[in-house]
Amino acid sequence: MDWARIQGTDGQILTGVISDGVFLPREELGSDEGAGDPVPLDQERLLAPTVPGKFIGLWNNYHAAATRNKLDIPEHPLWFLKPVTSLAGPDATVQIPADVGRVIFEGELGIVIGQECRNISEDEAENAILGYTCINDITALQVLTADPSFPQWTRAKGFDGFGVVGPVIATDLNWRDLTIRVEVNGRERQSYPADDMIMPPAKIVSKLSEDVTLMPGDVIACGTSIGARPVKAGDRVEVIIDGIGRLGVTMADDTSG
Amino acid sequence: MDWARIQGTDGQILTGVISDGVFLPREELGSDEGAGDPVPLDQERLLAPTVPGKFIGLWNNYHAAATRNKLDIPEHPLWFLKPVTSLAGPDATVQIPADVGRVIFEGELGIVIGQECRNISEDEAENAILGYTCINDITALQVLTADPSFPQWTRAKGFDGFGVVGPVIATDLNWRDLTIRVEVNGRERQSYPADDMIMPPAKIVSKLSEDVTLMPGDVIACGTSIGARPVKAGDRVEVIIDGIGRLGVTMADDTSG
Repeated sequence: MDWARIQGTDGQILTGVISDGVFLPREELGSDEGAGDPVPLDQERLLAPTVPGKFIGLWNNYHAAATRNKLDIPEHPLWFLKPVTSLAGPDATVQIPADVGRVIFEGELGIVIGQECRNISEDEAENAILGYTCINDITALQVLTADPSFPQWTRAKGFDGFGVVGPVIATDLNWRDLTIRVEVNGRERQSYPADDMIMPPAKIVSKLSEDVTLMPGDVIACGTSIGARPVKAGDRVEVIIDGIGRLGVTMADDTSG
Repeated sequence: MDWARIQGTDGQILTGVISDGVFLPREELGSDEGAGDPVPLDQERLLAPTVPGKFIGLWNNYHAAATRNKLDIPEHPLWFLKPVTSLAGPDATVQIPADVGRVIFEGELGIVIGQECRNISEDEAENAILGYTCINDITALQVLTADPSFPQWTRAKGFDGFGVVGPVIATDLNWRDLTIRVEVNGRERQSYPADDMIMPPAKIVSKLSEDVTLMPGDVIACGTSIGARPVKAGDRVEVIIDGIGRLGVTMADDTSG
């Protein structure tokens, strides 16, 4: 089942599932309750499929990247928060703020939480996961390290539009079978197997539930592996995970400042 | 004017202002529109006065603490996010998670945002500030430094209940006149003038609006100064700012795990 969020023709925002090219509104994310008439999908535009109260990102969660960067294997997820205002959906235009230096894409697998949970086991965590989505965890690398006394994870990853999520939340997947790929202007730039994760999804959710109460709709970006690269205004950047979909954005200069 | 949030007798949560000991419901935070009949104010029913989409905390924002800790004066706010699930209100019981080591209080002045803003000047920022509140930015110090490769700011400050906000948002204050005090079991443990801030509120808001779009109800904890200390189960910890009020919580052992 694929969960999505759309803006209906009357401007109202709807959450629901996609079935045979039709959008079926539901009461809320994960609910079985219908909430209105089916909407033909081709007339609508997909939004980020959830507005997470917490948008969590992991660092150092792939063996290949840990080996390449000579990092120790963490015992507990090393995580940061992306602000909810960084959220962007499919086909967004993502502005690169002036004067932030190099900006990179990071293609990632995203976990979406389906139920409130705290201090749960890995077995319980399997049931707390609603499904999986594609993430582009866009990062201004030089901002991250601009102050030697304080690594600025949230600031570097928190600019408006830097948290790209979608196009859907797919519920019927085996995460071990997935490959996370990124294409920039149609050319493959990142490709790695989800199975190389240091901490698998159920373990991530179980461990994070020791730190915080996880809520329905919360997003956990599982971290990236090798291959993340700089992007520039005009680039089309697509995160592709077969079984979930293709999550594309277009980078642009920030003209607001 | 003092903004507050209460749970009404029917369980409904109301936002409004306090006037002469009576609670006057309003449509939303900052709105002039009434939203129902006055409610006699019962102090015990006050909730955190806002549910922030972003709960931002600053590090290294007081001259006295920077001098004591031999820290350079930052040019841009050094900030982290506390998860919204860490939010607690007046008279909450705050559980200390098992096995996290030393937990400290940090008494702070909090800014509450009144309007959506992005890339605003300091003059504009004055108008974007709805008011001020008391914050206890509770922190598990050993979690912060548990992994040498990754300072865990959000995890250390993000446990449920570690973000105490209230009792009200006071709008008619001159922040320069304020003193932030903390009493533990009735004994004063922290007392410092807001006027010793490195970056004053309007500058903080202006600079943060370069990083993120700030939204109504967002909270910015202005950082703490010297005097933060460990607390233990059973302690009554009160952050007191004359002109805003007294924000007390009781620390307890976590019995959920």
